[in-house]
Amino acid sequence: MSSKKLKIIPIGGLGEVGKNMMVYEYDGSILIVDTGMMFPENDMLGIDYIIPDFEYVRKRKDMVRGIVFTHGHMDHIGAVSHIVEEISAPLYATPLTRGLIEVKLSEDRLLSKVNLNTIHAGDCFNVGPFKVEAFHVCHSIPDTVGLGISSPAGLVVHASDYKFDPTPVDGWPTDFAKLADFSGRGVLALLADSTNADQPGWTPSEKELDTALDKIFQTAPGRIIIASFASLVSRMKQVAKAAERYGRKMAFVGYSMCQNSEMAHKLGYLNIPDDVLVDLNEALSMKPRDVVLMATGSQGEPYSIMGRLSRGTNRRFDLLEDDTVVLSSHTIPGNEESVYQTINRLFQRGANVVYAPLSHIHVSGHAKQDEMKLMINLVNPKYLIPVHGELRHLKQHAILAAEAGFPAENIAAVENGQVLEFEDGEMTIGERIPGGYVFVDGARVGDIGPSVVREREALAQDGVVMISLVLNHKGQLQTDPEIVSRGFVYKHGDSDIMDETQKKVIDLVKKTKGGIHEQVVKSVRSFLYSKTKKRPVVLVTLSWV
Amino acid sequence: MSSKKLKIIPIGGLGEVGKNMMVYEYDGSILIVDTGMMFPENDMLGIDYIIPDFEYVRKRKDMVRGIVFTHGHMDHIGAVSHIVEEISAPLYATPLTRGLIEVKLSEDRLLSKVNLNTIHAGDCFNVGPFKVEAFHVCHSIPDTVGLGISSPAGLVVHASDYKFDPTPVDGWPTDFAKLADFSGRGVLALLADSTNADQPGWTPSEKELDTALDKIFQTAPGRIIIASFASLVSRMKQVAKAAERYGRKMAFVGYSMCQNSEMAHKLGYLNIPDDVLVDLNEALSMKPRDVVLMATGSQGEPYSIMGRLSRGTNRRFDLLEDDTVVLSSHTIPGNEESVYQTINRLFQRGANVVYAPLSHIHVSGHAKQDEMKLMINLVNPKYLIPVHGELRHLKQHAILAAEAGFPAENIAAVENGQVLEFEDGEMTIGERIPGGYVFVDGARVGDIGPSVVREREALAQDGVVMISLVLNHKGQLQTDPEIVSRGFVYKHGDSDIMDETQKKVIDLVKKTKGGIHEQVVKSVRSFLYSKTKKRPVVLVTLSWV
Repeated sequence: MSSKKLKIIPIGGLGEVGKNMMVYEYDGSILIVDTGMMFPENDMLGIDYIIPDFEYVRKRKDMVRGIVFTHGHMDHIGAVSHIVEEISAPLYATPLTRGLIEVKLSEDRLLSKVNLNTIHAGDCFNVGPFKVEAFHVCHSIPDTVGLGISSPAGLVVHASDYKFDPTPVDGWPTDFAKLADFSGRGVLALLADSTNADQPGWTPSEKELDTALDKIFQTAPGRIIIASFASLVSRMKQVAKAAERYGRKMAFVGYSMCQNSEMAHKLGYLNIPDDVLVDLNEALSMKPRDVVLMATGSQGEPYSIMGRLSRGTNRRFDLLEDDTVVLSSHTIPGNEESVYQTINRLFQRGANVVYAPLSHIHVSGHAKQDEMKLMINLVNPKYLIPVHGELRHLKQHAILAAEAGFPAENIAAVENGQVLEFEDGEMTIGERIPGGYVFVDGARVGDIGPSVVREREALAQDGVVMISLVLNHKGQLQTDPEIVSRGFVYKHGDSDIMDETQKKVIDLVKKTKGGIHEQVVKSVRSFLYSKTKKRPVVLVTLSWV
Repeated sequence: MSSKKLKIIPIGGLGEVGKNMMVYEYDGSILIVDTGMMFPENDMLGIDYIIPDFEYVRKRKDMVRGIVFTHGHMDHIGAVSHIVEEISAPLYATPLTRGLIEVKLSEDRLLSKVNLNTIHAGDCFNVGPFKVEAFHVCHSIPDTVGLGISSPAGLVVHASDYKFDPTPVDGWPTDFAKLADFSGRGVLALLADSTNADQPGWTPSEKELDTALDKIFQTAPGRIIIASFASLVSRMKQVAKAAERYGRKMAFVGYSMCQNSEMAHKLGYLNIPDDVLVDLNEALSMKPRDVVLMATGSQGEPYSIMGRLSRGTNRRFDLLEDDTVVLSSHTIPGNEESVYQTINRLFQRGANVVYAPLSHIHVSGHAKQDEMKLMINLVNPKYLIPVHGELRHLKQHAILAAEAGFPAENIAAVENGQVLEFEDGEMTIGERIPGGYVFVDGARVGDIGPSVVREREALAQDGVVMISLVLNHKGQLQTDPEIVSRGFVYKHGDSDIMDETQKKVIDLVKKTKGGIHEQVVKSVRSFLYSKTKKRPVVLVTLSWV
């Protein structure tokens, strides 16, 4: 039995950053927008990455009519392999986004399995009962679209990540006409990016970076090495143009930079003159001051090009004394320490390092407060659903909108799993479905839960002490207990403590009748705490011979 | 045999933040300025805090004539107990700084052991061959001084943490006259704060916070709860004045806030009218909109008042629906994630949260670029030694100075352990002494080295698997291997893998002759990796019966 309500169900991307997935459900049919992943926070020890908990659609896999992607960033496409392994529905994406999805699916040997369709900004297509109108928006990757999603319940504007850059590097501004058209037809709800809701003003145009690049290209005495995201195609274009202006040759360094720039070139999103672009070997053989390199590693990742250069462990080349390293990206919250450590190491090796706030060498890909108000005024929706951001961003988006006169009771600043229902033009807050994180660690998906992370935390805190006991059927020790530790004290053989612990255990086993395991764990823990004020994890095995 | 050179030896505070300790050595005598600690970075797993490696002075303890403190922040006094346990020399501090040192020494039962002397800004006193002139500077704690340190080698100005606030809350600006006086006498070297060297302009006056506080006090519908550092006495004063202006009662919450505000009150640094200050119980019994509370926890520390309020685990009171929580402090790099998690949790519990950049609710205690240039111009030293900051800050301080016309060859942007020598008015870069971190973890000082932290990292990454083997003298297993794991897989008894591992080990022991330990570790590691793409730490014990 199907309902004629429209349901909007945030699976990921509300109340957190970087794992976007939204479900639209009407009359027994489901449309999914984006399937993102996110990188773990510092306290999620050992986790590789996180995908949305898509149990809701897994249980309704036959209802899924299609998956539409807004753009090619990992927080919008990164979980695609996990989704298409379980759900077979056609995928829709613009050319560059499609290219990036294909790379991902190829890596996971799933490309042949999927039905992948190319769409363009301006296209209108049907996905089950939904009419989808893709429209161009500016963002930090080309070929980003917002979506008008119509069903008999009304028109919803899904403005994913966007900004209103008046002079974008690719010359293609956000489609104001389409937003006005939606507004004229009447918009039931607007879902819009909240990432920068605590930033006043208007995100500067990417064009403004040219001034900062000019200054660097004018003064750098040797090589220029620019670190950025591998997906930031507009930055590649700007660096190429600066190289052209100042007569330098440009080379890309590293697998993802080379792969993405090649794809963007092939698809027509990145045109670098043949006499500007050289390969890395050629660049390395030239005079330093004739060269600019572009690499990844702006987040301080230890195994990125910048991470290896800062440690002197890069394979193909090392830093030179007069190198100017430019970090052209913002630092993702949580990465500050590793980014600053990398900067300090680069300075130690004699490079000059240019980074924000020293230079205006990066602009955000997301709208700031004044743009967010403009979006609301342009679209003029009945309801506002802030998306993309931590809860503090969603709340701030709501506060902003209310300040701009939007009725506070028509704003739903909710978290993942909160079903929103629309019927007869009215929104109601529905049930809350289970949601949250699925950890991916190594080859295993979802079998690493918070309890394992808590165990890792305990291990990380004070290490582990392991004790092996060999007992006969009377509970008598058959040999001295073996004790091993890791991460606990300075030397593995910190003999006083380990010897004392051994004696303690021998005495205890002699006295104890039954419950030996618990007794030994308890007594060793309190003994070690009294001696060291530390609480290592104590593991005891009993072997009966 | 003693040298007539002046040596300046940075033990802590150069090339890192938050652990300041400087040695001045002349003619066989040593003067120490500050003995700070720092909190561990995210990748120093399980470490409680870090103190300077003061081996250099430990070896020369009989040469130490005195220890002078510039102010009472933990990064300048926090290691005092560790130092005075090994070095007996008189301590010199201004009243508030002395009060905070006494608290620290009392906690560690060392107060009776030390010779603690009170100094005031404007005082001149001798420490061995050094004449020390203390002069007032503005900073985010009252009673901060810079030091003029004269020896026959010349006058060195030690401008520790400072800013040039024209309208400080306590009405006591930085002592420009003394700086001009030093300049007139000729300054050999200036050591000055680099913390904000990448921040353009001038640090706003603390007075400017009043505007932000006014807005909050005017609009908050219920209680106001302000989170800040327990040492930020000027902020306490400003909040008290705002409470007075808007007719609210003020209460301090938590041990360190109460203790510090009481001490500052007793010493005359904080005068709150009797009809404004109430105790917490009284505040909790009043109407919410008549109350402002001040607490710690602005860094998202889980066991602080703010951390507990955000989790609903505070003992004395809970958040109320209309509470306005104000984070009046900057976020220390590395704490961003926990601060934002705390903010999100506070929003979840229905509070409104005001934090930077949403409101100008904090100003830095450190000079920015224009003030740093002004300090150089005022003091007009021959040599400049940037102190206090990561290497990137020291380098940026040097770049700034050079831009302002200071000869680049007279700037020493060096790291901890780099001895600087002054003789006949000339500076030379001397030897590099071993330096760096000493980790303090539990009851143990210095026995936790990087190798233990690396082990903890491995444990945190993929957990630990422990295998106990009982063998006879022929190397035959006497019982099935016992296997235990932590932090590795979802359930401890993830039976497939553990059963397979057990079979693997039994087979291996049967086949192996000698080197059983290495063989089992190696084989289990590669087996688990092939199955799970994870690399847990594998510990094996052999018991011979």
